[in-house]
Amino acid sequence: MPKPETPALTVDIIIELHDQPNRPVVLIKRKYPPLGWALPGGFVDVGETVSTAAIREALEETSLEVTLDVLLGCYSDPARDFRGHTVSLVYIAHASGEPKAADDAADVLMLDPCDAMALAKVELTFDHRRIIDDYCHYRQTGQIRLPE
Amino acid sequence: MPKPETPALTVDIIIELHDQPNRPVVLIKRKYPPLGWALPGGFVDVGETVSTAAIREALEETSLEVTLDVLLGCYSDPARDFRGHTVSLVYIAHASGEPKAADDAADVLMLDPCDAMALAKVELTFDHRRIIDDYCHYRQTGQIRLPE
Repeated sequence: MPKPETPALTVDIIIELHDQPNRPVVLIKRKYPPLGWALPGGFVDVGETVSTAAIREALEETSLEVTLDVLLGCYSDPARDFRGHTVSLVYIAHASGEPKAADDAADVLMLDPCDAMALAKVELTFDHRRIIDDYCHYRQTGQIRLPE
Repeated sequence: MPKPETPALTVDIIIELHDQPNRPVVLIKRKYPPLGWALPGGFVDVGETVSTAAIREALEETSLEVTLDVLLGCYSDPARDFRGHTVSLVYIAHASGEPKAADDAADVLMLDPCDAMALAKVELTFDHRRIIDDYCHYRQTGQIRLPE
């Protein structure tokens, strides 16, 4: 079978810090374009499972050892990354300790993702504002939205 | 950015037939190797969303117009398809009417997916037995397992 051409597969992780007040989540400042703040994440390698990729990327960019809890959704709008069509699988995970930026991350930030005022001050890349909005909906209602 | 090499992306659909007793689901008999029975599904094209791919593949193989309800999970074991590493996103959907095999499907079958005796008689390809097992767990408990 010739390898079919499909969108590139990525993973993004919403890391809840369970040992901090109000369970903040971790954003990273991207070192490479598109610049701005984003959820930790990256491409899935051939030969690794998606959950392995999620745990690996979280560790590489935030130095946190995460445990995956829930698959929030799959984000696949062809326009979500101007460099080419990527599909992101987004996990909700938890960790404890202090995040430290590394690898493709220049800095880290912890914030209450459902605090609209705090979030408005952060320039988010890709469709990560929408993902965080869907996450807050889940956090507040227990209901998972079905994205595209 | 050079296009990164990631696993090929596929979609599979668990189609519940809401207008039939006990809400059976649809399996298709594969026309091409690996032969056997499987959930309807196929590769996601570059430029289409994953949900569009799911609705398209369901229509092509079963002639049913489905509505997507829930993302059951992401199945990504590198060994799940011997032809190469594929990652499948599995949706639960519903439809009404009579399925008719078309495109890559040679035949269709409706069965109660949680009836172990009925399922034991069907030779399922890939990891679709496991996916159906996870689906039954969800159908019986409302809880979604987190696969690899």
